[in-house]
Amino acid sequence: MSSLDTPLDLTLDGGALTARLVDFPSVSGDEQALADAVETALRAYPHLTVDRYGNNVVARTNFGRAERVLIAGHLDTVPIADNVPSHVEGDLLYGCGTSDMKSGVAVQLRLAATLTDANHDLTYVFYDCEEIEAARNGLGHLAKHHPDWLTADFAVLMEPSGAMVEGGCQGTMRAQITLTGTRAHAARSWLGDNAIHHAAEVLGRLAAYEPRRVEIDGLEYREGLNAVRIDGGVAGNVIPDECVVTVNFRFAPDRTEADAEAHIREVFDGYKIDVTDSAPGALPGLGGPAAQAFLAATGGQARAKFGWTDVARFSALGVPAVNYGPGDPNLAHKREEHCSLSAIAEVEDRLRAWLTSS
Amino acid sequence: MSSLDTPLDLTLDGGALTARLVDFPSVSGDEQALADAVETALRAYPHLTVDRYGNNVVARTNFGRAERVLIAGHLDTVPIADNVPSHVEGDLLYGCGTSDMKSGVAVQLRLAATLTDANHDLTYVFYDCEEIEAARNGLGHLAKHHPDWLTADFAVLMEPSGAMVEGGCQGTMRAQITLTGTRAHAARSWLGDNAIHHAAEVLGRLAAYEPRRVEIDGLEYREGLNAVRIDGGVAGNVIPDECVVTVNFRFAPDRTEADAEAHIREVFDGYKIDVTDSAPGALPGLGGPAAQAFLAATGGQARAKFGWTDVARFSALGVPAVNYGPGDPNLAHKREEHCSLSAIAEVEDRLRAWLTSS
Repeated sequence: MSSLDTPLDLTLDGGALTARLVDFPSVSGDEQALADAVETALRAYPHLTVDRYGNNVVARTNFGRAERVLIAGHLDTVPIADNVPSHVEGDLLYGCGTSDMKSGVAVQLRLAATLTDANHDLTYVFYDCEEIEAARNGLGHLAKHHPDWLTADFAVLMEPSGAMVEGGCQGTMRAQITLTGTRAHAARSWLGDNAIHHAAEVLGRLAAYEPRRVEIDGLEYREGLNAVRIDGGVAGNVIPDECVVTVNFRFAPDRTEADAEAHIREVFDGYKIDVTDSAPGALPGLGGPAAQAFLAATGGQARAKFGWTDVARFSALGVPAVNYGPGDPNLAHKREEHCSLSAIAEVEDRLRAWLTSS
Repeated sequence: MSSLDTPLDLTLDGGALTARLVDFPSVSGDEQALADAVETALRAYPHLTVDRYGNNVVARTNFGRAERVLIAGHLDTVPIADNVPSHVEGDLLYGCGTSDMKSGVAVQLRLAATLTDANHDLTYVFYDCEEIEAARNGLGHLAKHHPDWLTADFAVLMEPSGAMVEGGCQGTMRAQITLTGTRAHAARSWLGDNAIHHAAEVLGRLAAYEPRRVEIDGLEYREGLNAVRIDGGVAGNVIPDECVVTVNFRFAPDRTEADAEAHIREVFDGYKIDVTDSAPGALPGLGGPAAQAFLAATGGQARAKFGWTDVARFSALGVPAVNYGPGDPNLAHKREEHCSLSAIAEVEDRLRAWLTSS
């Protein structure tokens, strides 16, 4: 009997359940079997209303509480790198997805199965395709087609955060700076105008750039403006007439996308600039009562989230959201990915304490 | 009857013969049919000894003169760009290879057929694969396998020169300058070290570089040092750990390749530099009696050749060589390539006058 034929047993402890989920491969685009298993397991609990859209599963309680908390996690992983099935070494569980983020999904499933009563109504969201292009992201599809399923007063995204609360996230914008010149044969270079040489000034501005640090809701954000690509050249004997520098600006959530674009245009004043893609940041949103109670239950400490995460999707829906998960973000996507079993238990305990305190 | 079945008629005038050659496609690597036709046409003349190696044809006289002049041209063209067959507009013959360099080949064939006596012994070299990678160049193969066929006191390469004598040629060297850094996620750029930003200084030195001008044998050479390629970048969200700038140094023929490399290393002192390929220049070699008589017959004026040409191969064999051909170098490789019919006649007349004056 392969692991795919075994139903998910939500009475296992968090570590054992994580191991079961890791041994159930679900690389982005191939989540259907795991989504089926999650849906089947949750439908066994009468206190949950279960809905499904594609390979996204949403389970909700109807306790009649004043506030609703949403707990979300993605089912998919990056491609397996010879690191499945999982194995345990001491307190560490190794395998693809242990940190990012099947340990978080295991905690979600444990809470969903066992919190038959709570101080908030609860919504558990399991979604697909987080690790690949944004257009396929399951949370994005839910926000578009079933926004009512995502209604909540506060959301916890169980992305790996080392069992620390990470508030908000920074925005990201990519832009291309295009330098132009005049093509000529390299043997008669004075007849041309070298576009690559014009990039000296652009790269000089980047090298001299001093990124801003800013504190928001007590969390310190650190911005960054970097060239992530440079391309120029026609042939080994031609003075090139074009060079393109692609920059990536990571901006603190007190800037809107429009602010970010204006900043890029100011830094590279005088150059041709095309913004190619961007995603807004999300403010930490730690001011509300649910968030304050959550912070207290999880130890009272929060730090800024630098990378862009799906908390920004909740922010766009008007739902304050944080990252809080047992995985180690520094191990995500690595062959040696692993997760601390005690962190899985700790995160489950703290969430349970928060959601059951009177 | 297609043009490929018609034997080459060397009694046609230079313009008409050029048109016949242009209508006989011979893109690099596909010269066999034209080489066959050239060989067959030359073997009809008893004053010529004809040899062949691959698609390279060499015809020699044995007049018993004190000095030997070599006249060389390549049979191949760049790919046809919807510009064959040829057509005439007024004094201009249009078509692929009209300038580069079937007009020169036509003059060679005309001289070979008609100069049954001359003041120098004559060697006519027709070779393949000049327009592609150096390793396939037919003149290079002859120099390696039949250097005796190339023995001469002076050589004229009939590359397009606008009916002007172009002396020597500049050398060319390519080098890669590699900048390194430390890879990191763009959301935490302070953990990395951006290799593309380090290229600012390298490009700054290039932008500020003042190329040398130098006079040799009365000809002014102009050097150039240029970036011809720049490459850096891992992904849109990664601080890149490598950036490579490829530079091309065109150097006057008073520098050896070793001098050129030392100069590049001086300009980019402090950086990792790898020379990837180079070719030496060729001094003008206009001091000898055959060259002086040639210069007088062609009008007494010469200019420096900036681009690298196969004259450097003759120079390496100890044969002074110049470029002199009816084509327009600015039209080479262009769709609108054409050649002046009167220039073809003029170049043939001047060479004939030089080679028959007493």
